[in-house]
Amino acid sequence: MLSIGAARARILAGLHPTPAEVVPLADAWGRVGATEVRARLRQPPADVSAMDGYALRASDGVLGARLRVVGAAPAGHPWPGTLAAGEAVRLFTGSLMPDGADSVLLQEDASEALGVVTVNEATRPGRHIRPAGQDFSAGDLLIAAGKRLNARDIGLAAAGNHAWLAAHRRPRVAILATGDEIALPGEPIPPGGIVSSNAHALAAFVRGLGGEPLVLPIAGDTLEAIAAGADAARGADLLVTTGGASVGAHDLVRAGLARRGLRLDFWKIAMRPGKPLMFGDVGGMPVLGLPGNPVSALVCAVVFLWPVLARLSGLPAEPPPRAPARLAAPLPANDHRADHLRATLERAADGTALARAFERQDSAMLRLLASADALITRAPNAPAAEAGEMVEVIRLDWLGV
Amino acid sequence: MLSIGAARARILAGLHPTPAEVVPLADAWGRVGATEVRARLRQPPADVSAMDGYALRASDGVLGARLRVVGAAPAGHPWPGTLAAGEAVRLFTGSLMPDGADSVLLQEDASEALGVVTVNEATRPGRHIRPAGQDFSAGDLLIAAGKRLNARDIGLAAAGNHAWLAAHRRPRVAILATGDEIALPGEPIPPGGIVSSNAHALAAFVRGLGGEPLVLPIAGDTLEAIAAGADAARGADLLVTTGGASVGAHDLVRAGLARRGLRLDFWKIAMRPGKPLMFGDVGGMPVLGLPGNPVSALVCAVVFLWPVLARLSGLPAEPPPRAPARLAAPLPANDHRADHLRATLERAADGTALARAFERQDSAMLRLLASADALITRAPNAPAAEAGEMVEVIRLDWLGV
Repeated sequence: MLSIGAARARILAGLHPTPAEVVPLADAWGRVGATEVRARLRQPPADVSAMDGYALRASDGVLGARLRVVGAAPAGHPWPGTLAAGEAVRLFTGSLMPDGADSVLLQEDASEALGVVTVNEATRPGRHIRPAGQDFSAGDLLIAAGKRLNARDIGLAAAGNHAWLAAHRRPRVAILATGDEIALPGEPIPPGGIVSSNAHALAAFVRGLGGEPLVLPIAGDTLEAIAAGADAARGADLLVTTGGASVGAHDLVRAGLARRGLRLDFWKIAMRPGKPLMFGDVGGMPVLGLPGNPVSALVCAVVFLWPVLARLSGLPAEPPPRAPARLAAPLPANDHRADHLRATLERAADGTALARAFERQDSAMLRLLASADALITRAPNAPAAEAGEMVEVIRLDWLGV
Repeated sequence: MLSIGAARARILAGLHPTPAEVVPLADAWGRVGATEVRARLRQPPADVSAMDGYALRASDGVLGARLRVVGAAPAGHPWPGTLAAGEAVRLFTGSLMPDGADSVLLQEDASEALGVVTVNEATRPGRHIRPAGQDFSAGDLLIAAGKRLNARDIGLAAAGNHAWLAAHRRPRVAILATGDEIALPGEPIPPGGIVSSNAHALAAFVRGLGGEPLVLPIAGDTLEAIAAGADAARGADLLVTTGGASVGAHDLVRAGLARRGLRLDFWKIAMRPGKPLMFGDVGGMPVLGLPGNPVSALVCAVVFLWPVLARLSGLPAEPPPRAPARLAAPLPANDHRADHLRATLERAADGTALARAFERQDSAMLRLLASADALITRAPNAPAAEAGEMVEVIRLDWLGV
């Protein structure tokens, strides 16, 4: 059996980010930029006032001075003249500084009457002026390539005068749930069957990570149905299957995909839940085979599908982020398989996160997984751990899972 | 000036969640459920095997016993008979337990030849059987109302046999950027003008929080243009304006909206950045007036728009989540305004987050804000703080901002 780290490295080594497409800035939130975004202009474009007040010469800004107000320069309407000694121009936040002015008298430090403003507080040269290019100059790097664009990035790209951005295409992920026993919600359920939860949970997972899910019809337990699923997935950047990958005689996914030329990389990982995991390639399309069990499927999705989607999206090839937490209760020693204990988190008095593993860790209990805040990661053969010890957790809320 | 907490409470008190609509399960990710989701069936529907192996009577599962294999029960194809003494039925993970069987012999503890299976390891009654309803029973609460649905919730709703969910309608948020000095990216920029970044940053912010942004054309600095913006926003759940709300004579948003009957609640908050903040109501539509300065606008969005969107979406009316962090460098005492220092986070050796405020906190520097990981929140009149002291931060990445 392979370790998680070795398996993940082997999977990621063969993947490439999707190519770029051009998206309007207004649709670029959450996308991963494919190229650097550099400023196309200077910001601010020239010296501007940081406050409401009056532009003047600093040499005129002495206590008690009385200056003639020769104009006003609302933002967007620069005062066209050159300010002379003894003169002031009314300004607002963002107003361009008039030529000849080098200081701002704050509105609250001024009194204006009959076209004359009195200086009630001495000014200093350059005070309350934002110099040209303070935020950025033309050509400055605003956003590195390979970053998921958040609201601030969108604002920054706009400020840098970009109406379009090059983004990696959303990875198309075909999802194939298999099994004679499963039915779509609301549809007739076969005898002893259950409602399929994996396909839609995984589709939501993919959507949450910026991918485009394609949920294929459920494949029954025949080789031809599974092979047809691979056909239906053609053009996807990834095929994810669930079920049928166990070690039982009923293991059909592998055999079904083999009809379409599956090259199998490996299919057993030393982890819990989720041992029967498969990775391969059908006609150049990578295939990730997840267990059929809903908890195993989702935990494996966190461990493997998360980095796969990140990589396909153009993000760095990294494992899902972990955070430190303190154990609220002791944990027994672990066996040879890496474990992912479903746990709740609360905040301790000192601010650290306190993780409490559920007593039941049955991999069929989806309701329990849904109520977990985090997975406590336990290395293979980790010794027993006392309450209060620090552990690493994968915070499911951070992943949007 | 109002405190942040008092202002937020006054804003939230007047808001109501959007009404519900019905959405297909496949589109429900990220939506906020409007009603409880209860299981419509039992999961598992009956006792099922947790492993691949053989169903038998526990009394037969003694070391060395040889049992006749009378059938197989792949998942979805229950074995229809009643298992008698001396008999075994081939099973797979998820297979229904046949009548008469009360134990599972693991595949790896069995050897089968010529229709006879030999018990190589004694079994126990109930072992490796998932009892009916172990995950949930019909009528059990699966998802509480008022929760943002993650991938696990979608899976759980599917497993509970829901093809449709009632979700709060996405809040429609009209965004009105104002100012003669601003232009859309790529369009002609007026003399001394800048490219509008707020509207698209806020639209991304709204989208990231599950709302539906409606970016209105930029309103020039006339009362009529601003009043027309209010008209264009009709039907929105919220109107957000940026700019024009400062204390300068150029303050037009208030006056413009007054033409459409603005009832002003308050408009100055003891916070930095962002003092000139406005809240009111135009014809029953709440209006949040943010500063024009991009950093102030986004920080105010985190502090006020985040909880407003949460509330409109059907989530609890709470301030944005904070996390503890340790100061990497000392901070000076704060004045009477609550502050939000832009900061980076790194992970200290002991696992705690280490927050380092930028030296420059100029509220016009959007590029700096974009490179921040968090806002260090500083209470009004907070005393100076040493390096190593614990502070509260708002993690921008958690908010998707």
